[in-house]
Amino acid sequence: MVVPRSVHPAHTRVTEGDLGVPVTRIRLTNGETFDRYCTSGPGSDPEVGLPPLRRAWIEARGDHAAYDRPVTQMHHARRGVITPEMEFAAAREGCDPELVRSEVAAGRAIIPACVNHPESEPMVIGRRFLVKVNANIGNSAVTSSIAEEVEKLTWAVTWGADTVMDLSTGDDIHATREWILRNSPVPVGTVPLYQALEKVGGVAERLTWEVFRDTVLEQCEQGVDYMTVHAGVLLRHVPLTARRVTGIVSRGGSIMAGWCIAHDRENFLYEHFDELCEIFARHDVAFSLGDGLRPGSVADANDAAQFAELRTLAELTERAWRHDVQVMVEGPGHVPLHLVEENVVLQQEWCHGAPFYTLGPLATDVAPGYDHITSAIGAAASAMHGTAMLCYVTPKEHLGLPNRDDVKTGVITYKLAAHAADVAKGHPRARDWDDALSRARYDFRWHDQFALALDPPTAQAFHDETLPAEPAKTAHFCSMCGPKFCSMRISRDVQERFARAGGPELLDLSPTVRADE
Amino acid sequence: MVVPRSVHPAHTRVTEGDLGVPVTRIRLTNGETFDRYCTSGPGSDPEVGLPPLRRAWIEARGDHAAYDRPVTQMHHARRGVITPEMEFAAAREGCDPELVRSEVAAGRAIIPACVNHPESEPMVIGRRFLVKVNANIGNSAVTSSIAEEVEKLTWAVTWGADTVMDLSTGDDIHATREWILRNSPVPVGTVPLYQALEKVGGVAERLTWEVFRDTVLEQCEQGVDYMTVHAGVLLRHVPLTARRVTGIVSRGGSIMAGWCIAHDRENFLYEHFDELCEIFARHDVAFSLGDGLRPGSVADANDAAQFAELRTLAELTERAWRHDVQVMVEGPGHVPLHLVEENVVLQQEWCHGAPFYTLGPLATDVAPGYDHITSAIGAAASAMHGTAMLCYVTPKEHLGLPNRDDVKTGVITYKLAAHAADVAKGHPRARDWDDALSRARYDFRWHDQFALALDPPTAQAFHDETLPAEPAKTAHFCSMCGPKFCSMRISRDVQERFARAGGPELLDLSPTVRADE
Repeated sequence: MVVPRSVHPAHTRVTEGDLGVPVTRIRLTNGETFDRYCTSGPGSDPEVGLPPLRRAWIEARGDHAAYDRPVTQMHHARRGVITPEMEFAAAREGCDPELVRSEVAAGRAIIPACVNHPESEPMVIGRRFLVKVNANIGNSAVTSSIAEEVEKLTWAVTWGADTVMDLSTGDDIHATREWILRNSPVPVGTVPLYQALEKVGGVAERLTWEVFRDTVLEQCEQGVDYMTVHAGVLLRHVPLTARRVTGIVSRGGSIMAGWCIAHDRENFLYEHFDELCEIFARHDVAFSLGDGLRPGSVADANDAAQFAELRTLAELTERAWRHDVQVMVEGPGHVPLHLVEENVVLQQEWCHGAPFYTLGPLATDVAPGYDHITSAIGAAASAMHGTAMLCYVTPKEHLGLPNRDDVKTGVITYKLAAHAADVAKGHPRARDWDDALSRARYDFRWHDQFALALDPPTAQAFHDETLPAEPAKTAHFCSMCGPKFCSMRISRDVQERFARAGGPELLDLSPTVRADE
Repeated sequence: MVVPRSVHPAHTRVTEGDLGVPVTRIRLTNGETFDRYCTSGPGSDPEVGLPPLRRAWIEARGDHAAYDRPVTQMHHARRGVITPEMEFAAAREGCDPELVRSEVAAGRAIIPACVNHPESEPMVIGRRFLVKVNANIGNSAVTSSIAEEVEKLTWAVTWGADTVMDLSTGDDIHATREWILRNSPVPVGTVPLYQALEKVGGVAERLTWEVFRDTVLEQCEQGVDYMTVHAGVLLRHVPLTARRVTGIVSRGGSIMAGWCIAHDRENFLYEHFDELCEIFARHDVAFSLGDGLRPGSVADANDAAQFAELRTLAELTERAWRHDVQVMVEGPGHVPLHLVEENVVLQQEWCHGAPFYTLGPLATDVAPGYDHITSAIGAAASAMHGTAMLCYVTPKEHLGLPNRDDVKTGVITYKLAAHAADVAKGHPRARDWDDALSRARYDFRWHDQFALALDPPTAQAFHDETLPAEPAKTAHFCSMCGPKFCSMRISRDVQERFARAGGPELLDLSPTVRADE
């Protein structure tokens, strides 16, 4: 049994209610506790996998054997049924389950929950809910192994990844994915095109609908919760990219563009889209409609190619909804800050509120090695305007494959961007976390500051680098200002003088001014 | 002679024109060059200091000996004179010197250029110009030495710091500052209150106007270019902080609040403000009006205390302008993303466009150890809305003193945030840099990607971690997708097919759609 690493001794995973909804409970030194959203799962033996939390719920609905009708969360939501998945997700959000049901019914939220991935703990993606973060894992032809990928999965969810995408492109795609699914407490997404391409020897022109369909069926049987499908890259869109600074930068987009041009035919994913919907409906796989023509540089942002594809993705969203299939829509990429809002607003308008799932976007191209930061700047702005899930970017973006440290840095950076957006959006419980940490800071409760931090060991290590001794953790100052000049201590002294005088109102001071004067 | 470290072999510092305006010239492998704004200075022997670039200009104006009239850039600008400093700054920005003069005359921009710091290379701070970045250095009572601080200065300007603030609080304040000034090619700011407090044994109550004034005079003589003065913390503002989550978090703010309450008197900096203006006018020292009541948590953002002080700072701005003294206004701190725009808009309105100089702001409190990122998110948004200079935040914020790596990370993170804002604001030359790097990326010119990167050695190290061999630096793929799936290579193939067919228009494709259909 591999228990998920506790990131701090004061953290405990606690499950509550009949459904076993998890929270991370943080014990503070002042006797209080603080509960945080928990993504880590209960821990698993990789050889055995996680317990199938949702199996009984699925069996009760008869969904596991349903091959002739929709079994999707959207299907149930539209019939007015609140499923255990909706209830579970609502409990994590701290909202009414009816809100989850109605948003899923309207297509404004999705619960990625394939009937063949009962190990996953349900979560909801939509603009009314907490902003979610996806971490990409997966091997490539150049490097990495299966064991490493399961390890990356566990590592990513330990730090807060809400979903993972397995983007493997090398050998052993099927086996890698099986290990990931059986050990993943979070929904798993894939890009089935990568595996389909492997099956035709890596030659895009040889791809066929049949090879793709069989790959999708194989992945549905395994339990993939959502799949990126580049059905919006149409033959007539391709010329719109010809004069771009960076052409087509999506792997799936370039593969399908290459196929369309080579055959002078329309994208087979677009032509067979309704058949795909039928398959997805029978397994409750959600679409992540890929933006194959997303800009790869700020120069190409919000251009004709990108928006032409977005129009097609809007059309496909409505087609999927006719099959009761859940949909989110992928977005860029590289977008300068002044165009981020337009990007979100148009996606939300055109796609009738279907959840937006963006990669960053990077606000500038000039900082390879720091693209987790350039993209977190765009991601926070995008999420504030309504993007529902953010695909992380690691420091290795554009340069190499992320290692363990990069995965953690990417997840942490995106969790803080997502949380900044939650606070900006006024999510009912978001700012409680900031306030709890700030109160600990003002009280000089150093241990509580570490325990409440997004990354407790790093916070403590940085503190201890200057002041390693234990007494410094209860000291009423820190190394930044030293003992004499601590503003917080002086400020507390001022407050205490107020208290002795019976409150600030009783001090003999000039009339107070108000900000709105 | 310590030559500033070249961060890449393809980088050369080149000076142009009679004024010797520096750029960093980057030689690309395709024969082109790309020029970047250069802050590093020519390099100096620390024992000797930098050559006094501006001495002849100052002597020509007679400013060095002027003790009875304003010698400020604002004074000259208002009389219609374009000084060499304005011309120099304009050349760096790539704009008309008249734009610099008119913005300085209107108070919407400042050129921090003390007559006693002739070593500095003039630069302009204002919303019409490139967003600038300040790096804080300086020792504290707990740690560090003079040699380390000069080293941090050189290190900070090597990576692009546009100004530095010496925030020393321990022993040897005067000597540390002397070394920094004589070796600094960028304007140097201070908070004279810290040194004044040392002179009265660290007891805030013992501070007097006379001690403060003498400290300011001492620093003016040394050549400090701008000084933070907490003259906006009024007695009647202090009670507004009593119920805050984090009280007063500015060191200067808490010292002055403590002084006001202890003496039950108005802030002596406010009462003697006109005398201060006279001193600043005689040396061309710019005010950085400190926001002593800035919020220290998102809970306290944009509250009555903060805005009451901002009203006072607006009043002080106009008073300083009456003396021809240059002014910028400091801002927070901790501000949730949805309040950042209001923060900038109110400062710009109330203070008649005086440059805003913010610390971050941090968009959330929950990520100690990553506050360079939480604050870069707020900083980029703030600068997009008009903030003129950003004070960096390092990963050690709230936890400890920054070391060499932290200083670099802080500067790089803020340079990318500032550049993201420059691109969003449409600065005439900003996006050229993104485009140059993206073209190198699309051409698989790996060496040029490294050379053009904000941090070349890090970009190259990250690439080489996966693919260290030299041939990989000309390979038409990278480790992320591997050779078979490279989207950029496929995209180029598609473009080449277009080219063979005579351009995209000539291919027999369905009618193209436009984004605005």
